[in-house]
Amino acid sequence: MSAERVRAATRVCYACGAATTAPAVRCDCGEPLWLPEVTDTTETDAPGMWRHAGLLPVDSPGGVADAVGDTPLVAPDAVADFAGVDVSLKLEGHAPTGSFKDRGSALAVAAVEAGYAGDVRAVGTVSHGNMAMSTAAFAASADLPCVVLVPDDIPESRLGVIAQYDPTIVRVDGDYGRLYERSLELGREHDIAFLNSDVPLRVEGQKTTTVEVCLDAAPDVIVMPVSSGGHASGAWKAVRELHAAGRIDRIPDLHFVQASACAPIAEAFARGDDTVAPVEGGETIAYSIANADPPSGNRVLAAARDTGGTVTSVDDDATRAALDTLARAGISVEASCAVALAGTRELVQSGRLDPDAEVATVMTGTGLKEASGSADTARATVDSLDTVLGGVGVER
Amino acid sequence: MSAERVRAATRVCYACGAATTAPAVRCDCGEPLWLPEVTDTTETDAPGMWRHAGLLPVDSPGGVADAVGDTPLVAPDAVADFAGVDVSLKLEGHAPTGSFKDRGSALAVAAVEAGYAGDVRAVGTVSHGNMAMSTAAFAASADLPCVVLVPDDIPESRLGVIAQYDPTIVRVDGDYGRLYERSLELGREHDIAFLNSDVPLRVEGQKTTTVEVCLDAAPDVIVMPVSSGGHASGAWKAVRELHAAGRIDRIPDLHFVQASACAPIAEAFARGDDTVAPVEGGETIAYSIANADPPSGNRVLAAARDTGGTVTSVDDDATRAALDTLARAGISVEASCAVALAGTRELVQSGRLDPDAEVATVMTGTGLKEASGSADTARATVDSLDTVLGGVGVER
Repeated sequence: MSAERVRAATRVCYACGAATTAPAVRCDCGEPLWLPEVTDTTETDAPGMWRHAGLLPVDSPGGVADAVGDTPLVAPDAVADFAGVDVSLKLEGHAPTGSFKDRGSALAVAAVEAGYAGDVRAVGTVSHGNMAMSTAAFAASADLPCVVLVPDDIPESRLGVIAQYDPTIVRVDGDYGRLYERSLELGREHDIAFLNSDVPLRVEGQKTTTVEVCLDAAPDVIVMPVSSGGHASGAWKAVRELHAAGRIDRIPDLHFVQASACAPIAEAFARGDDTVAPVEGGETIAYSIANADPPSGNRVLAAARDTGGTVTSVDDDATRAALDTLARAGISVEASCAVALAGTRELVQSGRLDPDAEVATVMTGTGLKEASGSADTARATVDSLDTVLGGVGVER
Repeated sequence: MSAERVRAATRVCYACGAATTAPAVRCDCGEPLWLPEVTDTTETDAPGMWRHAGLLPVDSPGGVADAVGDTPLVAPDAVADFAGVDVSLKLEGHAPTGSFKDRGSALAVAAVEAGYAGDVRAVGTVSHGNMAMSTAAFAASADLPCVVLVPDDIPESRLGVIAQYDPTIVRVDGDYGRLYERSLELGREHDIAFLNSDVPLRVEGQKTTTVEVCLDAAPDVIVMPVSSGGHASGAWKAVRELHAAGRIDRIPDLHFVQASACAPIAEAFARGDDTVAPVEGGETIAYSIANADPPSGNRVLAAARDTGGTVTSVDDDATRAALDTLARAGISVEASCAVALAGTRELVQSGRLDPDAEVATVMTGTGLKEASGSADTARATVDSLDTVLGGVGVER
């Protein structure tokens, strides 16, 4: 077994330091595991995120995986005006299935194919959203069977989006929260690699958002939405590795933002706790980040404190104002991304973020999947159009 | 007035060679105009499509425009197997509003801001799809009023997608086909720049798809869907300019594909005609390319013949097979893109495309906007999941 292969098969605990070579997801201490730190920042001419080959346990398997990463950074003036600070937006919607999840799915599926998850015959995930779609897409591209566990009451409209990649979709009746742990157990029994949000191989892919942000923009501060904590964990691992490798002089402050209707990590942060207690989540327009019992919640608290950041929350009105600002800047994102921009603004207004800082705020997914509904319209005939057009732009 | 400014304000006719400095869209001979040929292929470190600064009349205005272009090229094995030839897919869905239209919109709106469309107070477009969304997004980012003319019977679900960028939406009763010409007339009267599919400034942006394909992959053949002919015109202009500049040794064959239910250009090509006659279009799943009276149709015929390509068509069954292949490769596109892949396959099967050629097929837009519908699902409880998972992947 090569040194690289041993490393990819080793898991360590950020909290207690324990290590194992079992393809485990969680440490005996209860915390999520991740791969050992690397400081090889070799870049190749591979496409997208695969350019950062030294930091990753596997290379691109080709195909759609080559379209993952190297997403744009844009800095609209209107967004800076709204936030009260210079903000670069990392547009993760520019991805095969429209979200940051593709980084983790592409890497994890490639690693499964390379044998790094043991002898498995299929992959799976517990999700009814971006994660389900992304995992199914990359499983399809690898010709691996995929099982997606969704809640029994999933809206029909969400199913077609997932189904196009032909996974086995199972509607599960009962406590959906229990499914996370149960899926890992059942996966081991049935040789199915459940690539849930914070499994170590997925986190390796999620690192690359932050690697790109740090190497392309060198921000003082990174703000991102947080739900289960997998992406946040990847961000923390990325800045630690880049700093250890000497590629960045200073670790940026990592700020994480939740929707206040369902903000277990932010509430624990505000209390000064080291552990996250599950909450009874309420309704929010940012439903894709409403995780009431986040499996990597404690690791997110550690990441925020270690880097000098925060975990905070914003209400739906603040999120709507940010969504509106983004749309007026020509950027369509899902509500969870607007949470991060609303959070950036609130951090500045509350004095927790220096208005002279350079900030990168991560827009985790496209809004094109969820834009719908009706609109105000005028009416005209071809012949009466003249009158209507006379008024266009006059009121501005 | 600088030489660059004069060039950007000049329009020439590909067909009769006439030139004008009026901000006109069509020549007196009836054919669409475009900007004079350039052979300056200077590249800068500007982001996305703006890298090819020498070939473009304006630079990026910043903001969301910086996220346009530099889209991925991927080559899934399953797609090559399906097509019977090595195919690189250019994924234009990786764009702010999810389609190739963003290249043209970003450039045209930037040029309007720079004064290259005369003294206008708003922009507009005639569309109920990708073009409407894209034009509205880039107008919003430039803080320019935008008017979108849609058919009176537009499905409500399409309106919300366009409305997020806050244009004035006008439902127009009457002959929607007449609107194209009428909008140009009314635009002049009301100082509104109608940035329809084939206006010269939009075509300058649409060139960049092909510039990137040629410089990154140097294909022998390019296959793309065709509707109004604006993108196809941009492709032809791009290969002419790159060849004249000595950046490519040989102009690739340009093949254009339509849906057979509405294929006026393919029918004219098959007849050996130089001009396209309007058709009575039928229903097709590739509705976004079903233009029964394409304004740049004759220019597409000239582009195909000049480069040694074809204009062909495929039926919806062939398109569905291509869509299915793409989804199984993890790639979600709109049906119009699958038309191009189905066309690639049919060109190989009919002997019109050398199976040893290197082919680039353009996937013009994401499927994430239109994926919906229901799906086959299994059902389980958390406790009965064990049984369901035992069967996953076994049948494969």
